[in-house]
Amino acid sequence: MATELHVGVAGLGTVGASLVGLLDKKANALAARCGRPLRTVAVCARDRTRDRGLDLSGCEWFDDPCALAVSPSIDVFVELIGGDEGAAHDSVRAALEAGKHVVTANKALLARHGVELAAIAEKNGVSLNFEAAVAGGIPIVKTMREALAGNDVARVYGIMNGTCNYILTRMEQEGLGFAECLADAQRLGYAEADPTFDIEGFDTAHKLAILTSLAFGCEIDMDAIYVEGITSISKADIEAASELGYRIKLLGVALRTDSGIEQRVHPTMVPRASAIARIDGVLNAVAVDGDTVGEVVLVGPGAGGNATASAVIADLADVARGQMRPALGAPVGELTPYRAARMRRHEGGYYIRLSVFDRPGAFAEIARLMAEEEISLESIVQHGRASAAAGEGCSPQPVILITYETTEAAVKRALAAIEAQNLVDGTPQLIRIEKLA
Amino acid sequence: MATELHVGVAGLGTVGASLVGLLDKKANALAARCGRPLRTVAVCARDRTRDRGLDLSGCEWFDDPCALAVSPSIDVFVELIGGDEGAAHDSVRAALEAGKHVVTANKALLARHGVELAAIAEKNGVSLNFEAAVAGGIPIVKTMREALAGNDVARVYGIMNGTCNYILTRMEQEGLGFAECLADAQRLGYAEADPTFDIEGFDTAHKLAILTSLAFGCEIDMDAIYVEGITSISKADIEAASELGYRIKLLGVALRTDSGIEQRVHPTMVPRASAIARIDGVLNAVAVDGDTVGEVVLVGPGAGGNATASAVIADLADVARGQMRPALGAPVGELTPYRAARMRRHEGGYYIRLSVFDRPGAFAEIARLMAEEEISLESIVQHGRASAAAGEGCSPQPVILITYETTEAAVKRALAAIEAQNLVDGTPQLIRIEKLA
Repeated sequence: MATELHVGVAGLGTVGASLVGLLDKKANALAARCGRPLRTVAVCARDRTRDRGLDLSGCEWFDDPCALAVSPSIDVFVELIGGDEGAAHDSVRAALEAGKHVVTANKALLARHGVELAAIAEKNGVSLNFEAAVAGGIPIVKTMREALAGNDVARVYGIMNGTCNYILTRMEQEGLGFAECLADAQRLGYAEADPTFDIEGFDTAHKLAILTSLAFGCEIDMDAIYVEGITSISKADIEAASELGYRIKLLGVALRTDSGIEQRVHPTMVPRASAIARIDGVLNAVAVDGDTVGEVVLVGPGAGGNATASAVIADLADVARGQMRPALGAPVGELTPYRAARMRRHEGGYYIRLSVFDRPGAFAEIARLMAEEEISLESIVQHGRASAAAGEGCSPQPVILITYETTEAAVKRALAAIEAQNLVDGTPQLIRIEKLA
Repeated sequence: MATELHVGVAGLGTVGASLVGLLDKKANALAARCGRPLRTVAVCARDRTRDRGLDLSGCEWFDDPCALAVSPSIDVFVELIGGDEGAAHDSVRAALEAGKHVVTANKALLARHGVELAAIAEKNGVSLNFEAAVAGGIPIVKTMREALAGNDVARVYGIMNGTCNYILTRMEQEGLGFAECLADAQRLGYAEADPTFDIEGFDTAHKLAILTSLAFGCEIDMDAIYVEGITSISKADIEAASELGYRIKLLGVALRTDSGIEQRVHPTMVPRASAIARIDGVLNAVAVDGDTVGEVVLVGPGAGGNATASAVIADLADVARGQMRPALGAPVGELTPYRAARMRRHEGGYYIRLSVFDRPGAFAEIARLMAEEEISLESIVQHGRASAAAGEGCSPQPVILITYETTEAAVKRALAAIEAQNLVDGTPQLIRIEKLA
């Protein structure tokens, strides 16, 4: 059997502790599957004294991740520190420059510096693997980088944040409000004390930025992503979606258009019968439309110490086997610059919820303003009028509009005109509808 | 850029023709993704004159696949002939012995000779890749062989035959009978003129045999699989399933038990809310329960020329990159012998449909015979009695029983006793219920 692969692990939080435990517990099976033993020889974390339930007596301890990264004792550096700058960025760069393979779960780092780091890896002939960075335990990176080699991808989309999906699922299944579900998610450990990063869509955006590069062979451009979180989703939206045959999911979507690549993260109406609509709770799912294979969907746990460690181990197994691919699927020199699509055109149209003042002619005026932007309406839903006869008052009534395919710009202009004429109370709610198989 | 990878393709049916066309059409993209060009340099098929819409002028033509297999002009031999003996077996063995990498879509060949062929590949230091042999375009082989390296698998199960799933879906959605749906499937090209191989479950069994080996690190034993097809499924079963919150799917299931491995292919009641219940039409899906990651489900097209060619190209890309894994996940010498589980114990119990003669005491007697085998009933469904008052006649009435967890042997004994006492008309229908996430 070949020589041991010596692993250095920086960051001993939930994932790091799971990883070190599993490498020890499954040592024999891993050696058989990888053709050589894998051994944790060095670790680095902030607090040396904390009990993590691990026997680290055989490991060299480093206080500085950059020192671990370049240590002659390791073959591969596992970065589980997190964050797109500072220690994570410095140590990964140092490891690659020192000719160490790198495995990381750090989506923020890759979304920001992926191309730079891929180039360094390439120059030094080492692997940069990051299966755990996108959708946790789901092997979507390997699938896109390797299994879909014969495909040009038209679209990739998915549910990549378990916190948001948990909240939306609870809201729908139990008729609860956003705040209540968020509080429950925090209590159960599915959401951070500061949940901004998840619920505002940034976590999904990081993952999408990486998938976009893998899907289209282009450079990573996270700043080009349109990002909208789920905080504005109300019970009324969830109920209206259900009535109209949809469910609301926070999707990351990237697709190739004639004018470039479109990347967006936002709450999305998906047909109830679609595969993605049926992903509940903290599960993740990613769908890829390939021109050769058709649509492939991968479903599984998107977070959690063990599920994430499973992905890290798969990356280590590839290193152990000497299996190397360019980090982003193609060599950095062959990645195309990211070119943003000129405008958004949604095949599935839009869901619009308005609070319309109950005045004679108000709705006719709204319809006229929509028509002026050449927006056709597929359905209009208005339930019982609480305040009665025309002319009696102007208490606002909820009205739901579903448009046919149109452009984002047209919808925004129409809504601005509607607001300007004081036809509606508050800001209209706008949710994109995605056409799915 | 490295030297060209020279591909020889034996078999130019739907998949072979797709493959050769795609390797040509996508040559530039593939070269970028694989680090070297891939080129079809030689082909072999029965009919040299047939127009396949391909320009084969640059390819050497072989009439004998074994001659192509050992030709010095090729680096990798793609076997798309089919069948578990004869030309397919001979040519694959010859190629491996001659030090050629082999890519095959041939599930029957692998189910029968996989271990032998893996050993020859290993001895000669070449790859034996077969992504296309299981669930067509779904990258389940790569997922199990590589992405789940950090997992011990408890269970793998899936819908792996599009013909059967199409028939069951149509029966449910349109209330049609089996024969009518089969005829439609044949007309649409989803089923062969002789559909036995698909509808009797053998195709699923071949695929399951391969997955079992990958899942549990054991040798392949197709003959140990309990196989039951879908021909006995009636409209009455589909309707009863629906009423009870289930759908009927033809599943292949392999799981680890205390006494060994259990492998079975049969119509299965799956809870309507489960991921697998929602796979409709010709789609395939495979779910793997890993102890580290949890459950991962892959969904996609299980057949078709392009989808299958997509999997073949992924295998070729791995060869082009020099990425090698033992064919069955672990070296042949480390595979354990297949050890069959002692008896089947279904956590989900059984669905039993009986035509009970309408006689006083008949049902009490059935309940007594079930109780004698310690079978508890979770539900009993009996709709309106067509023939009226007790004692009037003995025309049989349909009765559905759902049992709690019990053993297959106990259920079979109880049903035999019920039949022996002439309590029921015809043979009872028995469908296993599978507990799923």
